[in-house]
Amino acid sequence: MADTITLHNPLDMHLHVRQGDMLSHVAPLTAHTFSGAVIMPNTLPPVKTLEAIQSYKQEILAACGDNFEPYMTLFMDKYDRAFLQQVQPHIIGIKLYPAGITTNSEGGVSSIDELAPTLEHMQDLGIPLLVHGESNGFVMDRETEFMSVYTWLATNFPDLNITMEHITTAAAVETLHKFNNLRATITLQHLFLILDDVAGGLLRPHLFCKPIAKRPHDLEALREVALAADPKVMFGSDSAPHPVSSKESCGCAAGCFTAPIALQVLCELFEEHSTIEHLQRFVSTTAQEQYGVVPPKKTVTLERKEFGVPDSYGSVVPYLHGETLAWSIQQVE
Amino acid sequence: MADTITLHNPLDMHLHVRQGDMLSHVAPLTAHTFSGAVIMPNTLPPVKTLEAIQSYKQEILAACGDNFEPYMTLFMDKYDRAFLQQVQPHIIGIKLYPAGITTNSEGGVSSIDELAPTLEHMQDLGIPLLVHGESNGFVMDRETEFMSVYTWLATNFPDLNITMEHITTAAAVETLHKFNNLRATITLQHLFLILDDVAGGLLRPHLFCKPIAKRPHDLEALREVALAADPKVMFGSDSAPHPVSSKESCGCAAGCFTAPIALQVLCELFEEHSTIEHLQRFVSTTAQEQYGVVPPKKTVTLERKEFGVPDSYGSVVPYLHGETLAWSIQQVE
Repeated sequence: MADTITLHNPLDMHLHVRQGDMLSHVAPLTAHTFSGAVIMPNTLPPVKTLEAIQSYKQEILAACGDNFEPYMTLFMDKYDRAFLQQVQPHIIGIKLYPAGITTNSEGGVSSIDELAPTLEHMQDLGIPLLVHGESNGFVMDRETEFMSVYTWLATNFPDLNITMEHITTAAAVETLHKFNNLRATITLQHLFLILDDVAGGLLRPHLFCKPIAKRPHDLEALREVALAADPKVMFGSDSAPHPVSSKESCGCAAGCFTAPIALQVLCELFEEHSTIEHLQRFVSTTAQEQYGVVPPKKTVTLERKEFGVPDSYGSVVPYLHGETLAWSIQQVE
Repeated sequence: MADTITLHNPLDMHLHVRQGDMLSHVAPLTAHTFSGAVIMPNTLPPVKTLEAIQSYKQEILAACGDNFEPYMTLFMDKYDRAFLQQVQPHIIGIKLYPAGITTNSEGGVSSIDELAPTLEHMQDLGIPLLVHGESNGFVMDRETEFMSVYTWLATNFPDLNITMEHITTAAAVETLHKFNNLRATITLQHLFLILDDVAGGLLRPHLFCKPIAKRPHDLEALREVALAADPKVMFGSDSAPHPVSSKESCGCAAGCFTAPIALQVLCELFEEHSTIEHLQRFVSTTAQEQYGVVPPKKTVTLERKEFGVPDSYGSVVPYLHGETLAWSIQQVE
């Protein structure tokens, strides 16, 4: 039983860093232990131009320093081929939000077939598609109902690389394995939570995220592929900071803030399940293979030493605030 | 289309008035428009003795004045026949909480067959049983899983009057209609909410209650029996005040505070569905028949006039706070 664990070039394949002061506060917390992260484009306004991509990237780099790669994404819309060719060198993919489902996605897309020409171009050019896969239906059914859209996408665009973002159900795991051009990210919290944790006892705003945590058999299906380092499954924290005033209020925004504790918690989980040898794949290698990226070098050593999760990082209350983790970050090189 | 509606002797067949300052604050809000209410016994400590029943009743009467009847309940436990005979004149029934399910129910019952002797006595003596019907299972399944317990109770104690409290599912409506000795209460909020309202957009602590709001077809089933004034269905608000600090916090207590707005909202609902002639049964007559009680006389006149729901009543944020209702209380005599 090792007392230290070394991870090379960890990647967070789904991250929200927001803007302005919040960005300056949270982005460095990710950059401290991750080599790179896929940056979500649901800012205000959404990232839809080359200028927006570039200035957002500069803002992140200014906060994080050089040894961190923000993999930028574009907010999905109807784009022509010339524009896509122009932005392609600057992005890792294009993020599709079905309209109105998550934070700042009111400008998302409501009819997916209108996007067919854009998807054709993306397929031709080799630009990946990242998808927030939820319908507008009943909250517990939204992801499962969206499976028909994934099937439509995967079948009609067989050479388009499609990432099912933050999957939360056994149904999504099943769909993932049906089509060669699908891969998925899984968050930290969805490897732990079911709806009971959010709303079964007290209502827990800091455990409330979208998609909402599901049923026990869904949790089991997610753990199975994550702990096995399934070659289609990557870590994507979906770490989503909201000031405490937006969480502990009469209307609580969706999102768990996990960036500063993700590696410690994953280490504990994989170690407990005797699958620690799979963690490197889950937090980096699979993503490098799936996206063909070479992240900046960063070696993170964790040690078996208790770490008390702070009650807050500035105005942001983290997931597991006040709890004690079994592993700490010892060194980052 | 009438512009006033008169209700006679409204009854709230499931109410939490708490203790001390909170009681003094909220009990009169119910007594203002209701003739009587069934008072839940999940105080700290729970109501388990004759002295506790009597002093709790006195506390409520002192706050509410004479023209209001608190129908007292005893917290279910293993009680002998002599004790039950002694308390019978002072209570309307005995409330069973499966252990650990709701506010202050940690002292509840975990194995129901241990209660068989007590249930036998209650059946013999004609003391009704009131049940919080939830299992310890997955939050969305708890009520449905409990149907086997209702079946066991209704079958083994065919002459025991059993109230299925605050039912929330189509499954409960189905069970209700299977056995002659079952009747049910329905809250205000469960005639409006599904899980999406609580956790589908923002997370809404003031809409969080137990049992949690369920699926659209469950809502439909509840509305159907309430609006039809099904002869087994009674209004029971389950109005449950918590200070705002217990709601808008990192762990929000379950309960919607509806006491001061319940009749206005019910009036609007029944009127909109052209079933206003059924409201008198739903809010009073059925309960009088089911329990054989004769409440104090109180005539409540509502008028079609906008009423802005306050943002709070003291420290308690009500259901629909800040919204505008179509009906107001005009007069209470």
